[in-house]
Amino acid sequence: MKSAILSVGTELLFGQITNTNSVYLSQQLNLLGIDVMYHYTVGDNPERLAEMIHQAFTDCDLIITTGGLGPTQDDLTKEIAAEVLHDELVLHEPTLREIESFFKKVNREMTENNKKQAYIPSRAVMFHNDAGTAPGFALEENGKTIICLPGPPREMTRLFDLQVKPFLEKKSQSVIYYKQLRTFGIGESALETELQEYIDGQTDPTLATYAKEGEACLRIASKRRTLEEAKAAVEEMIEKVNKKVGQFVYSYDDENLYEVVGKKLMEHKISISSAESCTGGLFAQTLTEVPGISAVFDRGFITYSNQAKIEELGVKPETLEKFGAVSEETAVEMAEGLKKVTKSRLCISVTGIAGPDGGTEEKPVGLVYICAILDEVKVSREFRIRNTSRKWNRNYTLLCMLNIVNKLLDENLSS
Amino acid sequence: MKSAILSVGTELLFGQITNTNSVYLSQQLNLLGIDVMYHYTVGDNPERLAEMIHQAFTDCDLIITTGGLGPTQDDLTKEIAAEVLHDELVLHEPTLREIESFFKKVNREMTENNKKQAYIPSRAVMFHNDAGTAPGFALEENGKTIICLPGPPREMTRLFDLQVKPFLEKKSQSVIYYKQLRTFGIGESALETELQEYIDGQTDPTLATYAKEGEACLRIASKRRTLEEAKAAVEEMIEKVNKKVGQFVYSYDDENLYEVVGKKLMEHKISISSAESCTGGLFAQTLTEVPGISAVFDRGFITYSNQAKIEELGVKPETLEKFGAVSEETAVEMAEGLKKVTKSRLCISVTGIAGPDGGTEEKPVGLVYICAILDEVKVSREFRIRNTSRKWNRNYTLLCMLNIVNKLLDENLSS
Repeated sequence: MKSAILSVGTELLFGQITNTNSVYLSQQLNLLGIDVMYHYTVGDNPERLAEMIHQAFTDCDLIITTGGLGPTQDDLTKEIAAEVLHDELVLHEPTLREIESFFKKVNREMTENNKKQAYIPSRAVMFHNDAGTAPGFALEENGKTIICLPGPPREMTRLFDLQVKPFLEKKSQSVIYYKQLRTFGIGESALETELQEYIDGQTDPTLATYAKEGEACLRIASKRRTLEEAKAAVEEMIEKVNKKVGQFVYSYDDENLYEVVGKKLMEHKISISSAESCTGGLFAQTLTEVPGISAVFDRGFITYSNQAKIEELGVKPETLEKFGAVSEETAVEMAEGLKKVTKSRLCISVTGIAGPDGGTEEKPVGLVYICAILDEVKVSREFRIRNTSRKWNRNYTLLCMLNIVNKLLDENLSS
Repeated sequence: MKSAILSVGTELLFGQITNTNSVYLSQQLNLLGIDVMYHYTVGDNPERLAEMIHQAFTDCDLIITTGGLGPTQDDLTKEIAAEVLHDELVLHEPTLREIESFFKKVNREMTENNKKQAYIPSRAVMFHNDAGTAPGFALEENGKTIICLPGPPREMTRLFDLQVKPFLEKKSQSVIYYKQLRTFGIGESALETELQEYIDGQTDPTLATYAKEGEACLRIASKRRTLEEAKAAVEEMIEKVNKKVGQFVYSYDDENLYEVVGKKLMEHKISISSAESCTGGLFAQTLTEVPGISAVFDRGFITYSNQAKIEELGVKPETLEKFGAVSEETAVEMAEGLKKVTKSRLCISVTGIAGPDGGTEEKPVGLVYICAILDEVKVSREFRIRNTSRKWNRNYTLLCMLNIVNKLLDENLSS
């Protein structure tokens, strides 16, 4: 199947928004075995939108649109989609009631234009939007399908994952099965070099490396007649890959490192607390994104000032004076103090220079010390992160912290 | 002048790369008063590329392409551009010498296919690329202009800023000036309704609303002969807008709320500390993304467990027992305890139910209490956030916290 992705919104043509929807949809469609031939972006202009849809349908069987389903006058995707595929909009009562109850719930007045969102093409297959007021839908005619999804990425991805994907899977003749491996501690080109022989000879399964913030990832995909065949081919390749780079792989299911760590902590009921300086709470915030983590996460300290390190964690003023706030000694005292205060089984501390200022020749931006204690086992490490930006330095520090915790758990727990 | 941006590269259609070039070029072209009508993305396919160029030229006078200027066989933008505008490629000796010296400099061997990059359409205006090996160029015929730029963003933006911009400025007759207003506490449709009379009658300046995560934004743009005229027209409209919805506007320069708050704290040297439960450090982490914030951010507590709330902040066990951890009383005691411990001028606390589990009928997921104290002024508020996901609930709670701090600062500081 050939497809086009059509993004609607003047804000995209003004460059106010980065088109992440096209990225997401491209990835997902390719994984479903659907070729993406074009991305188009148009503004909120009915003639040009209609023209684009007509044109995309000359080559493609499937168009996915995002945006232009809002309540305002210039939101016209629905109207145009219906027009092109010879349908008309009708009031969808359940959607209207949902929109009404949404406004009641958030205690905001429903304006007249919100009603517009409850009108849907009469032949449409609805995709219910429980994260917003604009439902999505699919409309078909003579083998051509248009799927219209809301623009906000949070709503769009949710709709796609839960409803559009199953809808599209039914249309496809072959089955794709894939695994996405996540690694930490090896760069993308090194990963590729290690796996060159499998990548070069790839017909099926295919191997593709790609980079995520600070990580190299690997997708192993197989397209076969049945799910069982595809699965077996992928599993076999994973075994080969593991022999080469297994020590760097922390997930075979595209999980984030914080999810992997959070799950292990919960599974083994290991209480955890954190003491952060340069990351400003990023570790605690990220780990507590995991649902149910309150069962093991006790507390976190963000001891930004020296005074806070002394008062909350019992870091010695002499240590700060002699070695500085950014030093292994301080990191260790932070973790030890944290252990004393919280009695959590796992305690982790971090101190470093996030930048953009504050670095010296001896202690440059990107210098980070991490100390972790699990019961009686203590690990402390120095990192010199290649300084790219404050945000990157903090994010990479987070990955280092999570990686240390993950390894500590693996090495010290028998599962 | 009407323009289209054409991105070339199969990696875009696979979703391996986010198209930031289109964002950058859109911003820049709009600022030059050049309307961007379309974004197109095609793979490395000569027929489809030629078709797209033809098609874009039916509406547009200007096409800017990015990508497909590399040394490999599938890089064909240059060839197709020359073909469509009836020109042919010729060897450009100075470029060849530059490519040779580039390879010498980075100590890499120059392969035969790199020579391909030195071929340029014979009538082209060259844009010299000092950051890579692919030069850019402009090619014109009968009032139609195509500008081909390399794909790597670092090279593309550099070429654009230094050479393409002056080239285009000479062509343009008008200037666009715009402001992007960010609001909190009003939905997009309510914002539009409030401003309906200005939006309906829009010729110049134009008003457009758009949504960002949890916020409604407004763009006010004017296209005039001179920058002064455009600026005056936008400023005048801002005054009118302010009379209607000024209380919701927190930035006139498209800044994030946390940046606005961070800057105000630093400007007025207000020390701040935070005590978070449901957000798990998100407030501290976000605020400390602002460079230089360590001058005012003292410390943060993530008191996830009841024990932590009692030990670190002095919340009374009776309060927790009687009203629960998620209650106004607990939020207030958290903030008051924080104030006692840290002596920061501004102390903010939050407690709530982030979900997905843990809600009851009386206290549903999304229920949040925030208390903030600035010197002697104390504010405490209840929020009932529409539960979408744990992540969203936490993000929206963050915005509520920042908004409270922002208002507190505005109302209690004379600037």
